[in-house]
Amino acid sequence: MRTLVLIRHGESVWNRENRFTGWTDVGLTDTGAAEALRAGRTLKNEGFAFDEAFTSVLKRAIKTLWIILEEMDQMWIPEHRHWRLNERHYGALQGLNKAEIAEKHGMEQVHVWRRSYDVPPPPLAAGDPRNPARDPRYAELDPADIPLTESLKDTVARFLPYWHETIAPRILAGRRLLIAAHGNSLRALVKHLDGIGDDAIAGLNIPTGIPLVYELEDDLRPIRSYYLGDPDEVARATQSVADQVKR
Amino acid sequence: MRTLVLIRHGESVWNRENRFTGWTDVGLTDTGAAEALRAGRTLKNEGFAFDEAFTSVLKRAIKTLWIILEEMDQMWIPEHRHWRLNERHYGALQGLNKAEIAEKHGMEQVHVWRRSYDVPPPPLAAGDPRNPARDPRYAELDPADIPLTESLKDTVARFLPYWHETIAPRILAGRRLLIAAHGNSLRALVKHLDGIGDDAIAGLNIPTGIPLVYELEDDLRPIRSYYLGDPDEVARATQSVADQVKR
Repeated sequence: MRTLVLIRHGESVWNRENRFTGWTDVGLTDTGAAEALRAGRTLKNEGFAFDEAFTSVLKRAIKTLWIILEEMDQMWIPEHRHWRLNERHYGALQGLNKAEIAEKHGMEQVHVWRRSYDVPPPPLAAGDPRNPARDPRYAELDPADIPLTESLKDTVARFLPYWHETIAPRILAGRRLLIAAHGNSLRALVKHLDGIGDDAIAGLNIPTGIPLVYELEDDLRPIRSYYLGDPDEVARATQSVADQVKR
Repeated sequence: MRTLVLIRHGESVWNRENRFTGWTDVGLTDTGAAEALRAGRTLKNEGFAFDEAFTSVLKRAIKTLWIILEEMDQMWIPEHRHWRLNERHYGALQGLNKAEIAEKHGMEQVHVWRRSYDVPPPPLAAGDPRNPARDPRYAELDPADIPLTESLKDTVARFLPYWHETIAPRILAGRRLLIAAHGNSLRALVKHLDGIGDDAIAGLNIPTGIPLVYELEDDLRPIRSYYLGDPDEVARATQSVADQVKR
């Protein structure tokens, strides 16, 4: 049996301000840092240990990973940061307040952007200062790979090559991995692992700061998966994510 | 011209307790964390930016790097942790108080262990709980590579292959690197870069928490090197390291 642990970063500054974040590189709030610390403590107390860690190139996920590794006293393991683990790119909505967008475009439209599988929000203009092509962290990417907006389907499509080429082979080689990432890059992975349909995946809400443990067959088919921690806490976190969707 | 920046980690818990640390994985004190933060601020204010970072598998160096990267808002760059950047292994002296060792063996002997080039301290017994072979972070090493003690010469010998095979080629490829490491792994590098003789290198004291900038020719020969920061602060840090040697 192989074990894989996923963790979604906790509250960021823009989560708190109810703004679309996407690829914007905003930090964790103190609450988000506390969520990460609790996750690290749970993993340590439950006897987990990792051989390698994966995260995005966005600091709210990286910091979540750092806090966990420090709490587990595993700061020395190799840590891979990759843009394919980034949050879904939210196009021209990035930085805007969700309530303001709902006022302007209607709740219905916002719901479509957030919860449909293949409808992307309006794209950034190429000349927009928010275009990732202007950010040195994406300087080595093929320009064709740099998104100006993404549907969840697009996020799945750019995440999976990294899973197949880099992450999965390491699990197959017996490495115990921790992946610290985002709501939608983790949705992409869970969709793949559990074979969730295009229509159902947007309804799956992964709570923040709660380790999601997958036990996998040798061929990486899931045997079972579960959230690690106090059941009340898991229930609260799941509810909190569901409430956020409704706002 | 190519630029390389070195940083020696600041005060650790065992520095404060005046104990030999070596490969023991002790954390930074608040003072050590503040040193790292100041270094990060200096690098940021002076307009430095990095493409990749290197550090050891010891948390006092890793944490120093993390604090710097967070302060510089460069948490996303690739970070490589490798045992060949570890501090010199101090053998059976690890964990012992320097004053107690001096009482037992005499200051003269301690000075030989600390400041000769090729005299290692007494080795750990293979069955010693401090033997790195018992630590999962070294599980994939060739057993012949795992030290039970090291002279500075040994540290140089195990550091240089990593320099030649991994770090130097990246500088030659135009990458701007930051290396966060330890007094003796950095001595090994400075010895190599500046062609310092075996007798002179132990007399070179690299201050903690002060960025050491190398400007290099295309073939990696140094053009010049300098400590970055307020001159008074650099002088204070250098004096503080020299005083520590005398204790």
